[in-house]
Amino acid sequence: MAQNIYDDPAFFEGYSRLARSTQGLAGAPEWPALRAMLPDLAGSRVLDLGCGYGWFCRWAREQGAREVLGLDVSRRMLERAQQMTSAHPGIRYAQADLETAELPEAGFELVYSSLAFHYIADLPRLLGEVHRALVPGGALVFSTEHPIYMAPTRPGWRVDAQGHKSWPLDAYQVEGPRTTDWLAPGVLKYHRTLGTLLNALLDTGFSLRRVNEWGPSDADLAATPALAEERERPMMVLVSARR
Amino acid sequence: MAQNIYDDPAFFEGYSRLARSTQGLAGAPEWPALRAMLPDLAGSRVLDLGCGYGWFCRWAREQGAREVLGLDVSRRMLERAQQMTSAHPGIRYAQADLETAELPEAGFELVYSSLAFHYIADLPRLLGEVHRALVPGGALVFSTEHPIYMAPTRPGWRVDAQGHKSWPLDAYQVEGPRTTDWLAPGVLKYHRTLGTLLNALLDTGFSLRRVNEWGPSDADLAATPALAEERERPMMVLVSARR
Repeated sequence: MAQNIYDDPAFFEGYSRLARSTQGLAGAPEWPALRAMLPDLAGSRVLDLGCGYGWFCRWAREQGAREVLGLDVSRRMLERAQQMTSAHPGIRYAQADLETAELPEAGFELVYSSLAFHYIADLPRLLGEVHRALVPGGALVFSTEHPIYMAPTRPGWRVDAQGHKSWPLDAYQVEGPRTTDWLAPGVLKYHRTLGTLLNALLDTGFSLRRVNEWGPSDADLAATPALAEERERPMMVLVSARR
Repeated sequence: MAQNIYDDPAFFEGYSRLARSTQGLAGAPEWPALRAMLPDLAGSRVLDLGCGYGWFCRWAREQGAREVLGLDVSRRMLERAQQMTSAHPGIRYAQADLETAELPEAGFELVYSSLAFHYIADLPRLLGEVHRALVPGGALVFSTEHPIYMAPTRPGWRVDAQGHKSWPLDAYQVEGPRTTDWLAPGVLKYHRTLGTLLNALLDTGFSLRRVNEWGPSDADLAATPALAEERERPMMVLVSARR
């Protein structure tokens, strides 16, 4: 079973204070780039893997999606999602461990996932389920932590004697678990190279449409100067693929 | 015009002593991975962009390629290639600046390029030429310097007070020229993110088949212990695509 860090009280408390929790999609700087990868949702069936508070599920219904299913491993997240979207009858939520979940066949035009895949040890298995769950021509659009961000054995900015800031990359080729302290101690993630991620999609039968190693635009920096360090190394990668 | 560093006497002299010059393909640790991406060459027409000494051109003929054309910006390289392959009548060499070269239409089943694309400022233009030069279903297989290797404003390993080695990544999102001193001072390359490289291929109409951020295998490390640092960060990326 995947580590369910989101049901850890300290983690949940910290997570609930992030901009992407309090402000929803608008609080996630990568959202405009991710949104630009999405197909037209009118009349479609949508699956959100790691739906969290359900912000995307709600947005998908507002875009005209016919049915939306949100899965998450965290009961706390799902309770919050239920509270927030009780007025949206086309949305269903269910608890599921993406490490083992079986998905219905050809049930969706879009599978979406935001920052969840890096918690999954056996990603090829999950991608096989996603492929089966999509109709032919259906879209998989997701974000995940970038391997550059995840790889280092000692993550964190380094500042040299001249005040120059850099990201201490190492162990990039050493794939497997990484434990970090983020909101709570001992958060378990799985590092894969970008090549491994993309080849897993290709091997599953997906065709790649777009790979976006997200970084802030000039407008992002003007609005949020603290994003400047995201120009030094990518923290996320956004991917669009088609069955 | 692209910088023609290979005709710089100091650079050429240094280059001629590298294992990949003296030993050919067997002297390049990434060659087995690149070779595994190639289609069957029997009876095919092959174009090598940045052919250098012509090692690959010769190998392609040995694999049964019908015609091989090697292009390079460097006259010194082409002279050496001519000397080395005079006994191989199916190989032609020509001087060409890949920044501006126009390629014949639908003339090749394979376009190959080893460690040349990072010298090209306008890669989308060249990829358009390559797409046009391939027959439908034809393959593009290439290696290029990895953006992780190229991005840093101050490249070179850092070793901290505890003896821990890391690669100081910065400026990853800042695409454009990078000048480094390698074999000769002032070698000019062009940094693009991996996303930009892959999206340029997709935008040109290629479908992606394989992305390999090359790193040494256990056997490579046993044979060449000095390759160990290539596990810390990728130096090259190998890509296979189809028209």
